[in-house]
Amino acid sequence: MAETIPHWLSKQADLTPNGIAIELVTGEEITFSQLMKDSQTFARKLAQIGVGKGSHAGILSNNHVSMLTAIHALSYLGAVGVLLNTRLTTVELNYQVEDAEVSLLLTSNDIKEAVNEIKVPLTYSFAEVDALYEKEVPLVQDLNLEDPFSIIYTSGTTGFPKGVIHTYGNHWWNAMGSVLNLGLNKEDKWLIALPLFHVSGLSTSIKSIIYGMPIFLMEKFDVDKVHDAIMNKGITIISVVTLMVQRLMKRLGSGSYPPELRCFLLGGGPAPKPLLEEAWKRNVPVYQSYGMTETSSQIATLSPNDALKKIGSAGKALFPAKLKIHAPNKNGIGEIMVKGPLVTKGYYKNDKANETSFIDGWLATGDLGYLDEEGFLYVVERQKDLIISGGENIYPSEIESVLSGMAQIKEVGVTGKKDKTWGQIPIAFVVKEQEVTVSEIVAYAEKRLARYKLPKEIYFVDALPRNASNKLVRNRLLKD
Amino acid sequence: MAETIPHWLSKQADLTPNGIAIELVTGEEITFSQLMKDSQTFARKLAQIGVGKGSHAGILSNNHVSMLTAIHALSYLGAVGVLLNTRLTTVELNYQVEDAEVSLLLTSNDIKEAVNEIKVPLTYSFAEVDALYEKEVPLVQDLNLEDPFSIIYTSGTTGFPKGVIHTYGNHWWNAMGSVLNLGLNKEDKWLIALPLFHVSGLSTSIKSIIYGMPIFLMEKFDVDKVHDAIMNKGITIISVVTLMVQRLMKRLGSGSYPPELRCFLLGGGPAPKPLLEEAWKRNVPVYQSYGMTETSSQIATLSPNDALKKIGSAGKALFPAKLKIHAPNKNGIGEIMVKGPLVTKGYYKNDKANETSFIDGWLATGDLGYLDEEGFLYVVERQKDLIISGGENIYPSEIESVLSGMAQIKEVGVTGKKDKTWGQIPIAFVVKEQEVTVSEIVAYAEKRLARYKLPKEIYFVDALPRNASNKLVRNRLLKD
Repeated sequence: MAETIPHWLSKQADLTPNGIAIELVTGEEITFSQLMKDSQTFARKLAQIGVGKGSHAGILSNNHVSMLTAIHALSYLGAVGVLLNTRLTTVELNYQVEDAEVSLLLTSNDIKEAVNEIKVPLTYSFAEVDALYEKEVPLVQDLNLEDPFSIIYTSGTTGFPKGVIHTYGNHWWNAMGSVLNLGLNKEDKWLIALPLFHVSGLSTSIKSIIYGMPIFLMEKFDVDKVHDAIMNKGITIISVVTLMVQRLMKRLGSGSYPPELRCFLLGGGPAPKPLLEEAWKRNVPVYQSYGMTETSSQIATLSPNDALKKIGSAGKALFPAKLKIHAPNKNGIGEIMVKGPLVTKGYYKNDKANETSFIDGWLATGDLGYLDEEGFLYVVERQKDLIISGGENIYPSEIESVLSGMAQIKEVGVTGKKDKTWGQIPIAFVVKEQEVTVSEIVAYAEKRLARYKLPKEIYFVDALPRNASNKLVRNRLLKD
Repeated sequence: MAETIPHWLSKQADLTPNGIAIELVTGEEITFSQLMKDSQTFARKLAQIGVGKGSHAGILSNNHVSMLTAIHALSYLGAVGVLLNTRLTTVELNYQVEDAEVSLLLTSNDIKEAVNEIKVPLTYSFAEVDALYEKEVPLVQDLNLEDPFSIIYTSGTTGFPKGVIHTYGNHWWNAMGSVLNLGLNKEDKWLIALPLFHVSGLSTSIKSIIYGMPIFLMEKFDVDKVHDAIMNKGITIISVVTLMVQRLMKRLGSGSYPPELRCFLLGGGPAPKPLLEEAWKRNVPVYQSYGMTETSSQIATLSPNDALKKIGSAGKALFPAKLKIHAPNKNGIGEIMVKGPLVTKGYYKNDKANETSFIDGWLATGDLGYLDEEGFLYVVERQKDLIISGGENIYPSEIESVLSGMAQIKEVGVTGKKDKTWGQIPIAFVVKEQEVTVSEIVAYAEKRLARYKLPKEIYFVDALPRNASNKLVRNRLLKD
């Protein structure tokens, strides 16, 4: 029997009406009570244009308070928000809105003009909705944890994007898994500079509602503004990806963060070990995590207890979750499989993906990793990125991690190139931090990598190809 | 679809094998890893004598580590623990073990001799189980949240005791509701001096497993030992009832507790307001809660944010729960109804109680209360304790609360006595702290209570009648 709980925003507005839900760089603060009222008003206006139970509404917006208002408004109507990535092309957006059967597209006011080519029955900017009359309709009072709340398309580094359905329960359990790992202090304030249209940002905004915790919401990542916020605004937790850590640490220089900053929660793929070591050496508390859209954000996180002794690991599965390695090779490396109530129940109207992705209730992630002797997860690679050279498995991230240790290298991407003799050979694309030569890089690598893992070709580039989620897309290294 | 999670003790032993699960007055500490191993060993020994999935095993023990080991061992076999109150008579125990269809009674070593008259097929002391060989059986790896974990009989101040079934989910949701109210710090250590056979103690021991938090387990409440523990052992939270607060504050004298002590979680019925005010005046952070066996421990608790402005209130329903007042009278007072995933799904094999207690998914608690204009709950009375005098409703706890404010009074119980003129009249039973006369009490009460609420008779007694749960049993005041 599915459990029901009170609508989370109404509940938090009842428990802490004057508690701060959202804090902005401008100093503006929105309370839970205000956020509830605004969302309910927005819901009644959406009802005026036909949004109701089961409606699918696309949301195309960068981080704004009005985006969160819209997301909660949909839930008050029993409608589902399809969160769209603003960095996508029109072609990509049209694929998603059609696949998700979106009947209404909501956009932030600044991008309304650009969306004429997106094929949906109705398009409204947030301001246009605000101008509507309210329709008196009953609003949702209780949440059934099995009902869908949001759909987010996977970043699409493989094949066609798939619409991941998140139920209320998925978000709830993710919030519980995280609180049991990180704890919950009444001073907590979580900075979001990652997009709300990704699951990481979205899930943090839901944690804010469930925990009664303010988020410090930024429109985008701006290293100076984020640095200032950490130094002056009482931030205790911040969600980051590798690039942000690198830039923030450079900005920090020889300084140090205030003691209340207790967690850099690092997602978005394995980080170079030298960076993590450097961070801890400088008292920056970076906790590597592992997760994906399908797991409603992190499913494994290195815990504060284990951070120092397990640098480079993504920790263990959160309390309500499990993970295992499928068909490990002789080094213990195999596909990471995950299970638990924070894992999506499936992709939207995609029987084929649902059949191939779930095995006995376990989700096959397509990522490679291994568990050490104490059961800590090390994420090695996405399976499709694996390089097989003369029968040897080569993991691009291992080579990248080693080369990242060179002070002269800013970032590096490694991929496989077809080769008549070896099948594939590893080649590297390097963005310089300072002047460096190919032979210097080779000399550095030779001391640290087996011969067959040495990049056979090294190219200097200005930037690495990244997808809309800012993830390195290794299979585009050779094409770009 | 019911959610499953990893077995909570195995999971915590995996996450923090060396974390402290239980700390004792002797200084002994038991880690999560040790507790898991001991419980699994105990489970295999129980399997030897036929305990398996669906077995009902009675547990008759005062607070001991081995009692917790036995409880977890049963869960590793899919068996259900029926927790028995050691203060009950043989007649009462026989009613419960028969009603709950107990096939095996487990007892602590010290009370084994006394249980010969309890009619169960098998009786084993913990030591006798320890002496058994282990049987290799598969142990439970995943918990289905809808499966039963424990049965506890309601304290039975009304009619026959009823067996409240607690599923794993009930305990899980209670733990989540509590963490969202109180937060979770890595320094947390929760003192249990209340019996583990009551839901309050039991649920805290489960929270320990889920949170990865040590409990400081005491065999019983001993004011000096509890005081010492608070002063010297880093206790942050302690579950208490009114009498314990009174005695601890007296023991504290003009001293003060260490700053890490952050919560006296007060259950067991409404507390006199003067006591709560006095506590806060002396920086003792008492949070009144409301709950019962059926709600798997607290379902409403005054939050730290509201503690000072709402003294006397039991707060609001925890995040996943709801409460409302049924059929309120002109003063807003009516029966308290509760709902949510932490509420029991029903009484064991008791269709009649299940039919009368649940209305549209709401549990009728039989307790009276009202909500103030901001929705905070004030528990007034158990309905059956209500005194109706000349058509006026009189709440014994109100009179008790007023009289408790007299320094000369240690405790007081009020009940109704049949009266030809008025139907009922309120009368009071007083335990003295210092010398005091009836006329002094009347003079004090006259200034604070409406005429019809004044106790018409006042008796001095040595102690008040309490049931096995240490709750005041008002309907025995006149009989004892």
